[in-house]
Amino acid sequence: MSTPPLHQLGARAAAKAIAAGTLRSQALMEALLARIDAREPVVRAWAHLDREEALRQAREADTRAASGALHGVPVGWKDIIDCAGLPTGCGSPIHRDRIAAQDAGAVAMSRHAGALVLGKTVTTEFAASHPGPTTHPMNPAHTPGGSSSGSAAAVADGMVPLAIGTQTGGSVIRPASFCGIVGFKPSHGLINRFGVKQLSDTFDTVGTFSRSVEDAAWLVSALTGRADLAPAQATRPASIALCRDSDWSEVEPPMLAAIEQAMSQLAGAGVQVRTLDLPPSFDGMGEAHKHIEYFELARALQPEYRGAREHLSAAIRGRIETGLALPPQAYEAALALRQDCQRQMTDLLAGVDLLLAPAAPGEAPQGLQSTGKATFNRLWTALGLPALTLPHSTGARGLPLGLQFIAGARRDAALLSHATWLEALFRRHP
Amino acid sequence: MSTPPLHQLGARAAAKAIAAGTLRSQALMEALLARIDAREPVVRAWAHLDREEALRQAREADTRAASGALHGVPVGWKDIIDCAGLPTGCGSPIHRDRIAAQDAGAVAMSRHAGALVLGKTVTTEFAASHPGPTTHPMNPAHTPGGSSSGSAAAVADGMVPLAIGTQTGGSVIRPASFCGIVGFKPSHGLINRFGVKQLSDTFDTVGTFSRSVEDAAWLVSALTGRADLAPAQATRPASIALCRDSDWSEVEPPMLAAIEQAMSQLAGAGVQVRTLDLPPSFDGMGEAHKHIEYFELARALQPEYRGAREHLSAAIRGRIETGLALPPQAYEAALALRQDCQRQMTDLLAGVDLLLAPAAPGEAPQGLQSTGKATFNRLWTALGLPALTLPHSTGARGLPLGLQFIAGARRDAALLSHATWLEALFRRHP
Repeated sequence: MSTPPLHQLGARAAAKAIAAGTLRSQALMEALLARIDAREPVVRAWAHLDREEALRQAREADTRAASGALHGVPVGWKDIIDCAGLPTGCGSPIHRDRIAAQDAGAVAMSRHAGALVLGKTVTTEFAASHPGPTTHPMNPAHTPGGSSSGSAAAVADGMVPLAIGTQTGGSVIRPASFCGIVGFKPSHGLINRFGVKQLSDTFDTVGTFSRSVEDAAWLVSALTGRADLAPAQATRPASIALCRDSDWSEVEPPMLAAIEQAMSQLAGAGVQVRTLDLPPSFDGMGEAHKHIEYFELARALQPEYRGAREHLSAAIRGRIETGLALPPQAYEAALALRQDCQRQMTDLLAGVDLLLAPAAPGEAPQGLQSTGKATFNRLWTALGLPALTLPHSTGARGLPLGLQFIAGARRDAALLSHATWLEALFRRHP
Repeated sequence: MSTPPLHQLGARAAAKAIAAGTLRSQALMEALLARIDAREPVVRAWAHLDREEALRQAREADTRAASGALHGVPVGWKDIIDCAGLPTGCGSPIHRDRIAAQDAGAVAMSRHAGALVLGKTVTTEFAASHPGPTTHPMNPAHTPGGSSSGSAAAVADGMVPLAIGTQTGGSVIRPASFCGIVGFKPSHGLINRFGVKQLSDTFDTVGTFSRSVEDAAWLVSALTGRADLAPAQATRPASIALCRDSDWSEVEPPMLAAIEQAMSQLAGAGVQVRTLDLPPSFDGMGEAHKHIEYFELARALQPEYRGAREHLSAAIRGRIETGLALPPQAYEAALALRQDCQRQMTDLLAGVDLLLAPAAPGEAPQGLQSTGKATFNRLWTALGLPALTLPHSTGARGLPLGLQFIAGARRDAALLSHATWLEALFRRHP
């Protein structure tokens, strides 16, 4: 059995080797920087990289005894999250040269666990729809998804073992699915958001990218300072319900096939599987999500809109203006519907461990003009429920298809433990 | 009838006079700066003032036609909220020299309505408990309350007609009550929080200080861009319930007397009044509030704790360390209790327009070592309900006593409209 190249090493495996003295953080960092040198001209995952500072952190980590679960392990941060001394460009010319004076709360937590900041990853403009330059690591003619485009592509391509993104619609789960990696959008508010550029206070959620569920659990445990979220035993879910909503017709045939295959894999492994068709009361949630997001981003982005309107894309300017024109009554009605649906979902989830849903309509679409649709992500973001995507199979173009698993409110630890089991199941029967 | 001095003019009255051409914004600003010159050595309400920039904004406003409801009106901003070009000192030596590159979302919204930034008002350290230098405008031996100490004192003293604060425990309602002005803590999330230093994501709420309900409504309407929150007709509430919880014994005799007097004023004016004793299921909310706040601030303040621990007060360091040591299970249990109580409160509020509660245990305590207790504020912050305090009477030391009115979830417009009626009632029968 040949040893995989160093840049493909998982985060926790690397941290263990560094703590054991069999790997130096500097060697890992050099391997990642070499991978970036080789691949970045095509993938374009990074918005800001300070190679010298990254190496300095690694050498410094090598001088200290391991102090946390991610000691000496580099992390990539979506470029809407403040990392002290680096710009927070937000995918916008307005912020291109704005150096963060201080770490975001989550960045400081990661350093406390020994992690290093490798650099900032490409985001769409303000984590909304206007795309950045990042391409799909497996086929540069395709989008890697977004808005956390660089984080997904960098982890998938072996440029960094871990990266952080945010999700307001489908910005963690969708790109992770497209790129064939593990994406975890925890419960709303689980990971601290201070120092993260805001789009929608009600929806914005910090999430993780990794190449294994175990690494996702170590990372979220570090970011939250919560030992109860560190990897636990793989647990078979007793029951999983395939959740279908009114947008179900948008699921593409390869994703339908992946879901059908997964349902029989699950049944074969002793999981009770059934189908849950969402009641019509959920039909308005797509529009409610849009109303809440636009109303809120119009206020959150008011400094840019007032001060530098000409440097905003037409896409985000349109959203801001739509949000400013939206009657407050429509916003309040959307918030009320969301709360109703949260209550209903609590009842629907009684007696089922997880819901299964597509992570995206299908494979990563061709072209870089759009990062794809958040159709099958918005509801879970809006309800604030923990969701995780696992790579399952590939589609007609040879690009990955991810399956999304959703747990009840604040059941993040249970979701991670079930996902560990599911990951092994899908790896055994690819 | 003599004309009151210019510095005592209300915000909306000033805006109307400026729009009508009978008052120049520059004259108003000069009157406020003169008041500050005279009183600031004792009151110490301001953390940062740029007189030249304030006058420049006023002169500039005078060259333009009135563009919004607060055209030409100066506002004070709590020094945890970013105002472009001014420091955001956060009441901490760590942030003393940190100049904000950009306005907070709420600041940008206020400028859109024509308001001017007068300066930054004193906050306790990170809007937590360690006090700043501000004194009570009516008696400098007493605290003005906190954490929004400077905002409350400046508005009460006529240094500025409007100011902004934040409330995580009782940091808007309590100082407003102590200083004898109107404090409004809207529904959680109503006013955008981007650019506001975070303590607890679950609780932090931006609120307002003014000398009338009408001015509060104009201000919150401007900050949210919502015409539906601008002053509406004064509406008599059909029913008000005095809400008593397990901390009721902490209400001091002068506040009890004020509440009793208000209950008979209300009954005399045709309002149905009754008493609501909170069920024992609410007894744990005080501790739950503390658990959530400490757990979250320990993560939000991790950058300061990691990078500059020696510049933190013992008080905030203790809270951070308590929050880091708190088991995640206790935090999750507190969040779950909060959600239960939110559901129960919805039922309890059925059939009643408003709840009445003390805004504080009594008058502003003597001494500047503490800003007083948030005992009667925490629950409403934790539940995210809109709360407003109105000056009612004075206590044994001649300092103000405020009464707090609370409405159901998202009923901010109704609360403002009822408060307009209540304010007139209490003014007629002082």
